[in-house]
Amino acid sequence: MIQSVAMPQSAAAESLRRCRVFRVPTRNPADIGGLLDLIDSGAVPAREIRAILGKTEGNGGVNDFTRAFALTAVQNALSERLGRVPAEVSAQVTIAMSGGTEGGLSPHLLVFAVGPAGPGRMVTGKSLALGTAVTRKFHPEELGRIAQIAATEAAVHEAMAQAGITSADDVHYVQVKCPLLTAEAVACAAARRQPLATDGTYKSMAYSRGASALGVALALGEVPADALDDDAVCRRLDLWSGRASASAGIELQHNEIIVLGNSESWASADVIAHRVMRDAIDLPAVQQVLADAGLASAGQLDDAARHRVIAVLAKAEASSTGRIRGARHIMLEDSDINATRHARALVGGVLAGLIGRTDLFVSGGAEHQGPDGGGIVAIIARRPRLQADA
Amino acid sequence: MIQSVAMPQSAAAESLRRCRVFRVPTRNPADIGGLLDLIDSGAVPAREIRAILGKTEGNGGVNDFTRAFALTAVQNALSERLGRVPAEVSAQVTIAMSGGTEGGLSPHLLVFAVGPAGPGRMVTGKSLALGTAVTRKFHPEELGRIAQIAATEAAVHEAMAQAGITSADDVHYVQVKCPLLTAEAVACAAARRQPLATDGTYKSMAYSRGASALGVALALGEVPADALDDDAVCRRLDLWSGRASASAGIELQHNEIIVLGNSESWASADVIAHRVMRDAIDLPAVQQVLADAGLASAGQLDDAARHRVIAVLAKAEASSTGRIRGARHIMLEDSDINATRHARALVGGVLAGLIGRTDLFVSGGAEHQGPDGGGIVAIIARRPRLQADA
Amino acid sequence: MIQSVAMPQSAAAESLRRCRVFRVPTRNPADIGGLLDLIDSGAVPAREIRAILGKTEGNGGVNDFTRAFALTAVQNALSERLGRVPAEVSAQVTIAMSGGTEGGLSPHLLVFAVGPAGPGRMVTGKSLALGTAVTRKFHPEELGRIAQIAATEAAVHEAMAQAGITSADDVHYVQVKCPLLTAEAVACAAARRQPLATDGTYKSMAYSRGASALGVALALGEVPADALDDDAVCRRLDLWSGRASASAGIELQHNEIIVLGNSESWASADVIAHRVMRDAIDLPAVQQVLADAGLASAGQLDDAARHRVIAVLAKAEASSTGRIRGARHIMLEDSDINATRHARALVGGVLAGLIGRTDLFVSGGAEHQGPDGGGIVAIIARRPRLQADA
Amino acid sequence: MIQSVAMPQSAAAESLRRCRVFRVPTRNPADIGGLLDLIDSGAVPAREIRAILGKTEGNGGVNDFTRAFALTAVQNALSERLGRVPAEVSAQVTIAMSGGTEGGLSPHLLVFAVGPAGPGRMVTGKSLALGTAVTRKFHPEELGRIAQIAATEAAVHEAMAQAGITSADDVHYVQVKCPLLTAEAVACAAARRQPLATDGTYKSMAYSRGASALGVALALGEVPADALDDDAVCRRLDLWSGRASASAGIELQHNEIIVLGNSESWASADVIAHRVMRDAIDLPAVQQVLADAGLASAGQLDDAARHRVIAVLAKAEASSTGRIRGARHIMLEDSDINATRHARALVGGVLAGLIGRTDLFVSGGAEHQGPDGGGIVAIIARRPRLQADA
Repeated sequence: MIQSVAMPQSAAAESLRRCRVFRVPTRNPADIGGLLDLIDSGAVPAREIRAILGKTEGNGGVNDFTRAFALTAVQNALSERLGRVPAEVSAQVTIAMSGGTEGGLSPHLLVFAVGPAGPGRMVTGKSLALGTAVTRKFHPEELGRIAQIAATEAAVHEAMAQAGITSADDVHYVQVKCPLLTAEAVACAAARRQPLATDGTYKSMAYSRGASALGVALALGEVPADALDDDAVCRRLDLWSGRASASAGIELQHNEIIVLGNSESWASADVIAHRVMRDAIDLPAVQQVLADAGLASAGQLDDAARHRVIAVLAKAEASSTGRIRGARHIMLEDSDINATRHARALVGGVLAGLIGRTDLFVSGGAEHQGPDGGGIVAIIARRPRLQADA
Repeated sequence: MIQSVAMPQSAAAESLRRCRVFRVPTRNPADIGGLLDLIDSGAVPAREIRAILGKTEGNGGVNDFTRAFALTAVQNALSERLGRVPAEVSAQVTIAMSGGTEGGLSPHLLVFAVGPAGPGRMVTGKSLALGTAVTRKFHPEELGRIAQIAATEAAVHEAMAQAGITSADDVHYVQVKCPLLTAEAVACAAARRQPLATDGTYKSMAYSRGASALGVALALGEVPADALDDDAVCRRLDLWSGRASASAGIELQHNEIIVLGNSESWASADVIAHRVMRDAIDLPAVQQVLADAGLASAGQLDDAARHRVIAVLAKAEASSTGRIRGARHIMLEDSDINATRHARALVGGVLAGLIGRTDLFVSGGAEHQGPDGGGIVAIIARRPRLQADA
Repeated sequence: MIQSVAMPQSAAAESLRRCRVFRVPTRNPADIGGLLDLIDSGAVPAREIRAILGKTEGNGGVNDFTRAFALTAVQNALSERLGRVPAEVSAQVTIAMSGGTEGGLSPHLLVFAVGPAGPGRMVTGKSLALGTAVTRKFHPEELGRIAQIAATEAAVHEAMAQAGITSADDVHYVQVKCPLLTAEAVACAAARRQPLATDGTYKSMAYSRGASALGVALALGEVPADALDDDAVCRRLDLWSGRASASAGIELQHNEIIVLGNSESWASADVIAHRVMRDAIDLPAVQQVLADAGLASAGQLDDAARHRVIAVLAKAEASSTGRIRGARHIMLEDSDINATRHARALVGGVLAGLIGRTDLFVSGGAEHQGPDGGGIVAIIARRPRLQADA
Repeated sequence: MIQSVAMPQSAAAESLRRCRVFRVPTRNPADIGGLLDLIDSGAVPAREIRAILGKTEGNGGVNDFTRAFALTAVQNALSERLGRVPAEVSAQVTIAMSGGTEGGLSPHLLVFAVGPAGPGRMVTGKSLALGTAVTRKFHPEELGRIAQIAATEAAVHEAMAQAGITSADDVHYVQVKCPLLTAEAVACAAARRQPLATDGTYKSMAYSRGASALGVALALGEVPADALDDDAVCRRLDLWSGRASASAGIELQHNEIIVLGNSESWASADVIAHRVMRDAIDLPAVQQVLADAGLASAGQLDDAARHRVIAVLAKAEASSTGRIRGARHIMLEDSDINATRHARALVGGVLAGLIGRTDLFVSGGAEHQGPDGGGIVAIIARRPRLQADA
């Protein structure tokens, strides 16, 4: 073919980056065996690791220390392999741990590595692209408010630029790791007579996630700027991002952003797609996103198709109406098990039935991250012709 | 009548029974509003009610009092409407409450009514049939052992005969409500120097369910009689029934049996089908049972098909291997949430994704009720041509 | 009789009432065996029963159905023994069930019977007096606000009058059973565009308890009327009653009040005393209230003294500071176990160590019911010289 | 020196060791701030630290990762300050983390430092002595059996010798950290056809603790050797040690022993005493042990006395009878909260009421560690005349 004679894409490919994604099971929150195997086997140079998303087996609530335990273990491992102090590791690798593997969900890490595409690689069309960014640190009184929204918006744009993504349509998943208000922060703000979005530590997680998601929505043109003010956060539930996934943690004061999308500037073996589940049992949305990624199926994926699913990322939430398609759920009234735990288990089951696998990154707490009771489902999948290339 | 000469099926139908199934949502464990509406609206004469299965919103464990609360409320309501004392109600209506609506499961009652098919009804082929039976009361030392197995086997045969089911192949679901060992029973047996299958109250629930399921398996020819002895219970996990669903409760000393199947002796609008899920995420088995019931679908049921699904009954269990298709689950290691709760949430999600509804009767604790980590899924569905007849 | 000439008190006693208190263990939430034994043995005529406080073994949260289960069982039992419909029973007997027997607390009922003191009884000084009252039904928008406070204040005065207590100093315990906002009530108020104190079902329990406690405080002169407005509820934590114990339930729309105190108009065998625990481990306050009741002790009560303790009623709460005497507690950060459950277990331990018994009525959720992290402890004790008279 | 001629005790003291104990609050499981402050302030040379007992805020069950998280953090901190690799730290410092701070218990570390007593210190009588020892690694089939009992007995003797304690009467507390059976270990033993004491991971914790406690009992002469065989473990509940406190963890394959007692070979400022609580509310036993340590009190300790209480160590357990002094407890029937959690909260409350403080080392799971439902309570207290010397 004429096209192949010229082969400009291939030439370009040599100077392109590629993003690789590895799904690593963990035997406990601090299990770094699989991560070290990746590095020590030569599969992934430590310096290429740019982001790690981890699903840990805690309760996903305020006292879920599995997140911090996993974070510490991963940071120490990378620090050792990179020969750099942990603080430098944080600057290079964005790490977000999400607690809660209820139902059948399986604890695992998703390791994102970015490196040169290398010679001889055919490139056609867009493929998986990754960019990261961080905001400045926030004052307690900025959390859950316009200041956090605006800073998140800017950071998403920065991460898109880093990822070489020019159109918001090519962004399919934005992970935000955001701060919460500690009791100390609340006391400190009180001493300075600065009113906060909320005085509650647990509630501040919702406000921080909500403002972060609205920042993503703003950056991606999902909501108009003039609809947003301080009062919109956690109240205007009709405003949401179909691509944001935010989780709050005690270990940072700024927002960290990971943008995943597709770009022609990359020569990755995978692509990413997403859809919005309108409620927790929206199986058609999951089938659609699989079809978007070239994996249409009339039921559970067969082995070949399942092998092409590199990662599944979804948000789960109990509908505030107390109902799913008219039938009452008990998630919000259960004083023994938090609603987020029920929701993860449920969405995990819906996804696992179709995918045929349980190592799925389902996280809870979906304020402004999809419609009430629903949320994003994103799939990172091997491109068909590149399948042998894994 | 002239009509009967010309239409022999119809004539037959007039002398046939029909079994009708009503799915009634509940707002709390003691909510009998929907049940009374059924009766008081004239839809179901109280005297026709033969069985009620209820999914209540407790923890499904030892201290789940929602089962007893619901049972009391339902018995009192029926007692009042039937003008009979509660003990007489028990003799007429077999009631089994199953605790636990984790994930998105929705609390509800399944009301089974048996009455004359009535004139003018066309009958072709087998349709939903119901039979009930009770065993004698068991001594504590009989629980979880051959005595309970044998008595259950006999009761299943008795219920089959009552249901007019002659072939075990036509049995698709057998609900067993069985006793457990109370602390008093354990102490009493100790005083009589009678060793028990187990001294543990909680563990006795498993033994009682296990022996009951093996009794069903024996009755249905699923396991050979010579494979069974006292030691097999809760140990020979390779021996199981694909149609049993057993739950243990503190309120009885005997086994109560409900057999559901298809029979030509009935003129019901519904049929029942079942399959065995080989693990908790065996979506293909669920699709197969839907297809068996004439509801084949390449994904979530559409509204018309969903409308034809009258009831879904399934068993959920954490695999003892700690794994689902090779991926670790945390159900058995979670000291905050019991494994049965995780398992119900998971299987509930798998089913809800496909059915598109959450009022599903998913119960936990599946000893000898399907393969390790799996269990039965049964569907009661409206027959296609009878759909307008609901 | 000659004796009566010389002892006018005795003559008076014949026309006086006496309040008797019975502590009845329960084997499960619906266990009415002990209650029926009281009645059927002739110890207590059913018509004398005026109030029942029950400690049930649920989680004490939104989905604690053990309270309603117990309430139903007790109402049905009284209805049957009194030959009156349950609605009439409610008018005669005030029943309040409190969920949660964490730690070593033991489920039980406290049955309060009021009858004539009878002839020949020596009376000296004040003794246990009981009065009950109910408010009107509240609109949803009145809950947690001045309207509920004012109505509660009036009802406390009414109950005091009924009890023959003229001085607030003689009131030692005021149990308030108050409503909560259901999802239906919230929706209904929204339709009428009536803003509520809170839209949260769970949170409304706190507001309702808080306003009820402030109503008690107002009635007893513990807080000045001009300090109270809508905004004070659940915010001005410095305003509290040292004698209120409020619990919210889904089964009523009005407040029900039980006032317990000492009065010369009664000839009871018992007296009541109370103190305020300044924090959850304020053992000296418990020793003081025992001393107030004539049971001073340098450690755990001996058998004779313990036998004189008829009932112990206390409130437990996690301090909002997250600390007890400077040491961090984890009650408010635990996403597995609610803070109220931790608090009941803790206070139950403190009390049980001193009293030497675990059937103590410790309830949680102490908004405006004592200082932050503390709460009332009241003791009903047999008067020394009347001990043989039980 | 002349002085030494006149004051032989002092001369002796200079060559004696002293054991110092520091109670360090933690803000989260990985908080090593207080530990580093101890070291960096010069209060405790890192090389003197011999043992650390930590109370962490997890659930104390199988998936309580707060223990491992705390252990890792402490080991890394010591490794850094000692300039030695973590494995060497383990050889020098015995660290045992116990999960569960239910009720009002406060997370903290107890740091035991051993160093020279130094010149000029007056020594009179016995004072706090510490010895540590480890057993060999156990095969899975040895856990919960005579092999573990015997090895523990030997290690206790070794630790006593190290501590300079010659009489078992002078031993007041023996902490044992022991292994559990992982799923891998169970599978491995099955492959080798080695039957185990139990196949259950959770249950193996009880067997390991039980055998360890019996080993201590044997070493201290609390049970006769001929009463012990494999079958005694977790069955002969009448055999127990009044001084053992065992906790099982996933991170080791051998037993680690810390013996605490009093010895004339030491010149410590503190002494240790212990008593056995006969049930969970045995306040008199707590008062007795305080009196043993010179802290007799008719109620909660005053500030001066409380200041002298350096550490409180106790075991908590739900009585297997389901009763405390005849009153039913619900700990064993609660499917939401494990019995060990209830028990710690309860005993924590009993102790906190008397001591007036909540940073108490109460651990659960007391197989063969005291009578059924009871357990040891030990107090490390400042000696009166040495109080200014802290």
